[in-house]
Amino acid sequence: MPGRPSKRSLCPVACTLDLIGDKWTLLILRDAFFGAHRYRDFTGSPEGIPTNILADRLEKLVAAEMLERRPLAEGGAREGYFLTDKGRSLLPVLRAMKEWGLQNIPGTRVPKTDK
Amino acid sequence: MPGRPSKRSLCPVACTLDLIGDKWTLLILRDAFFGAHRYRDFTGSPEGIPTNILADRLEKLVAAEMLERRPLAEGGAREGYFLTDKGRSLLPVLRAMKEWGLQNIPGTRVPKTDK
Repeated sequence: MPGRPSKRSLCPVACTLDLIGDKWTLLILRDAFFGAHRYRDFTGSPEGIPTNILADRLEKLVAAEMLERRPLAEGGAREGYFLTDKGRSLLPVLRAMKEWGLQNIPGTRVPKTDK
Repeated sequence: MPGRPSKRSLCPVACTLDLIGDKWTLLILRDAFFGAHRYRDFTGSPEGIPTNILADRLEKLVAAEMLERRPLAEGGAREGYFLTDKGRSLLPVLRAMKEWGLQNIPGTRVPKTDK
């Protein structure tokens, strides 16, 4: 398909990693689950995502239909980023990583409401 | 701790991504779950991991105690890589990615024994 990178294999794990296999993408989705919609919501997280990386990942997440852009308020002009059903369905991946981190990396903790 | 990279935050997802947040690490662990122990086992997978990346990730996985080196055969001199309990406990992350990929990325399939 034009514009879409080719798959490394037909393995569902490999293909998923082609979309979210980096240090930042799942953190953007994590923040979206916690209600982040605007740039400053994402840049305000403690990891301090660089704005150029944020812009790149948001664009890719929209292209992959895991996030969508729509008005922040009904009828408003300013847009924000919102999880789609496809993005929301990654929650089990985030949960599994959260559990693994809590059990295996000393000092980690969940600061906000547990989702 | 000397030699250990500092955490970006205390978030268990962020800290987990510091260890496995790339396109290759989880594929090495996938292969280890399927019984890969030697370089050629890993390089033989369809994604074609470059050997320099494989060497780097194996070293990091051993340092993070997710893999360990030990003799391939009892009393033998040649060593291979084996999952530790800590590495094995990442299975739910792999499973969640597998399920997401199968449901959301057309054409993906699990070629070998489902684990």
